[in-house]
Amino acid sequence: MTTKKRIVIVGAGFAGLFATRTLAKHNVDITLIDRNNFHTFTPLLYQVATCALDPATIAYPVRTIFRDNENVHFLMGEVVEMNTAEKLVQVKTNGTIRPVAYDYLLLATGSVTNYFGQKTIEQNSYGLKDLDESVQLRHHILKLFEKAAWVEDGALRDALTTLVVVGGGPTGLETAGALYELYNYVLKLEYKSHYPRLRARVILLEATDRLLSPYPERLQRAAEKQLADFGVEVMLNAAVADVKPDRVTLKDGRIIPTHTLIWAAGVKASPLAEMLKVPLQRAGRLPVLSTLQVDGKAGVYAAGDMVYLEDEKGQPYPMLIPVAKQQGVLAAKNILREIRNEALESFHYDDKGIMATIGRSRAVAWLFYRVQLTGFLAWLGWLFLHLIMLIGFRNQVSAMINWVWNYMTYDRSVRIILDKSEAPIVEKPKAETEPTENIKLLA
Amino acid sequence: MTTKKRIVIVGAGFAGLFATRTLAKHNVDITLIDRNNFHTFTPLLYQVATCALDPATIAYPVRTIFRDNENVHFLMGEVVEMNTAEKLVQVKTNGTIRPVAYDYLLLATGSVTNYFGQKTIEQNSYGLKDLDESVQLRHHILKLFEKAAWVEDGALRDALTTLVVVGGGPTGLETAGALYELYNYVLKLEYKSHYPRLRARVILLEATDRLLSPYPERLQRAAEKQLADFGVEVMLNAAVADVKPDRVTLKDGRIIPTHTLIWAAGVKASPLAEMLKVPLQRAGRLPVLSTLQVDGKAGVYAAGDMVYLEDEKGQPYPMLIPVAKQQGVLAAKNILREIRNEALESFHYDDKGIMATIGRSRAVAWLFYRVQLTGFLAWLGWLFLHLIMLIGFRNQVSAMINWVWNYMTYDRSVRIILDKSEAPIVEKPKAETEPTENIKLLA
Repeated sequence: MTTKKRIVIVGAGFAGLFATRTLAKHNVDITLIDRNNFHTFTPLLYQVATCALDPATIAYPVRTIFRDNENVHFLMGEVVEMNTAEKLVQVKTNGTIRPVAYDYLLLATGSVTNYFGQKTIEQNSYGLKDLDESVQLRHHILKLFEKAAWVEDGALRDALTTLVVVGGGPTGLETAGALYELYNYVLKLEYKSHYPRLRARVILLEATDRLLSPYPERLQRAAEKQLADFGVEVMLNAAVADVKPDRVTLKDGRIIPTHTLIWAAGVKASPLAEMLKVPLQRAGRLPVLSTLQVDGKAGVYAAGDMVYLEDEKGQPYPMLIPVAKQQGVLAAKNILREIRNEALESFHYDDKGIMATIGRSRAVAWLFYRVQLTGFLAWLGWLFLHLIMLIGFRNQVSAMINWVWNYMTYDRSVRIILDKSEAPIVEKPKAETEPTENIKLLA
Repeated sequence: MTTKKRIVIVGAGFAGLFATRTLAKHNVDITLIDRNNFHTFTPLLYQVATCALDPATIAYPVRTIFRDNENVHFLMGEVVEMNTAEKLVQVKTNGTIRPVAYDYLLLATGSVTNYFGQKTIEQNSYGLKDLDESVQLRHHILKLFEKAAWVEDGALRDALTTLVVVGGGPTGLETAGALYELYNYVLKLEYKSHYPRLRARVILLEATDRLLSPYPERLQRAAEKQLADFGVEVMLNAAVADVKPDRVTLKDGRIIPTHTLIWAAGVKASPLAEMLKVPLQRAGRLPVLSTLQVDGKAGVYAAGDMVYLEDEKGQPYPMLIPVAKQQGVLAAKNILREIRNEALESFHYDDKGIMATIGRSRAVAWLFYRVQLTGFLAWLGWLFLHLIMLIGFRNQVSAMINWVWNYMTYDRSVRIILDKSEAPIVEKPKAETEPTENIKLLA
């Protein structure tokens, strides 16, 4: 009687989830570890931050996904130590440290926001990499509007309702577009009873001279035009030099008074990569063999955003969901091959193109790096693709109906501020620095 | 030219909301103050706590409700001082204190959980009076199950999955029923991959010898039987003497090991009542004249749970939503009458009966204090009534569809734990007291 091989998968993102799904059908014992009890559908995080979707709509309990797989064990916790010599990880869970032994280990903890070492930016800005951050940003924006409604000082009021997004990539575009929609279709209508009425500005800052750098120039210009037509102020060649709680200073000296800086200007590998004590690549990414094995660490694989692997042309694979999904599946298959003493296979990316949405009916898409789409058609494609992906995870018609309904009707009902006002879990220490003498009783 | 009368309403619960709605159609200037930016549909709080509904489904932004009423101004904040001589309230909002002047003041801040002065119960139990508490309870229960799944010690594991509800009123019954449903239809299926499998107990404690004290005995026994048939352990004559993080001690000495005590055994008036410095009635309720005026305080009215007023038989009106709604409307009308120098009217409660739900297809109802319904018919009545109420507030077909869908399909998808594990905003200090030697590595 042989015992089942123990496979430990760290991270329930796209790579970890697809790997678990692939392995679950086989006679192996899987422990899936994540610090959250849910998988996050990250492409729609910006919709949670902008009140379009409920957190639960894009977060799906891991246990539900693997409800019928009795060989999948879920452990909610964080890996705090890896001992690859003894094939053991230490997991912090419920205030205790639990050792978990493995025969094979798959690391798939993804990426985190990259502030490029700039502490003042990190302290004074909002990221959009997980559900907690998205909910925090939603609370922050709604609170600022509640405050602005009762502020007499015009300059302070305008600063409170100026929302700045940094980064001209897909996340930056989507977020800027969705913020303007939130203002234009909802907030503008709901602060009518105050005089003077609130105006909001949404500013998108990009350090280079173009948005969406990997796209063809025609699509870059189309995205810029669609954003501008819509109401978003796009500022190119606008690198951030410094951020304070109430302003952003650009490298050329310009100052934008704002209390909301959303940092979508870069990501880096999850810090878990550092625990392996191997030399890392740029953005802290963990180099792997083309089989997704970590060189010199027996039984250790890695997949997804945290991994550094070059394609046939010597270019690193981008940190994108399709790459993560395909790597997760290959890593799982290679683990099964290793168990059976079969030859492992190398990773090849089946690349269907890239797309970015700007708002309802506005998007750009570059399919198979041949077909360039803009506007409504591109947006339909974006919508279709995300629906397919959501269904794939959930197998839940009700969730899809809910999401489509919310998305189509623009029912932004998720506008509740749900944090203890005394507990600073959500609020960053921005409010305190504002001069109170500016806040006067509305006449 | 006469200036509009300034009416300040404190509290956006049922009384405050119905008062605002009544006044909004008239030529007055209304400031509605609440510490949340949303109205909470409190009858369904237990469904948020038991993962059946998303917080946003039962919380509706106040600004949306009054979007078309330009004479309604919403101020998010807490009243910290009342000066009825100068007709001024001081509101803590966004870290500053804002004075708000009024011609007429309506107090409608409802009720809070009543621990009857027992500090250890307050510290070691969960309330169900607002959305924050409900979400905290949801997180707490889900975390306990995540923990229990990996605990080897049988006694500790059972304690972690024993959920105790105190109070045999409608809230206690509904909560106990919904907790058992959560276990029976969801959690039981999702912890299958662990051995030994998790069992949960749901225990309902009632200090007297019967549930639902104001109901006829036939309905009391029917409720008890429905709960027991379902799987809830009902313990009558079971008064709580003491609560520790890991156990409940009853007055008769029996001990129930549990990490979850939900206190639904009583409410008292909001502490705002104390700020008026008038003698209060039992449960801290504020005595009012039959016109809902506060005696001796010119221009001050009060309505809803916080108010003490006796009916024709000398019985105080119960702390129920229909009473609050009707009082809110009457207070608003009497304020309008006072402005026009018309005679004020007295409160008379239009009482249609009482009902309580126990779970899907299980309820008891006492309509017009004549018709006694139990089981499916009573439950249909409950469902119908709550739908009508939800629609009344929201005027939003989409919200209703969503809610009905979730409720009917039993889609408990809202099972995400969304709190920073390091931040104790959600977790009460229970976990630490558990002996760590009981937690061993699962074989």
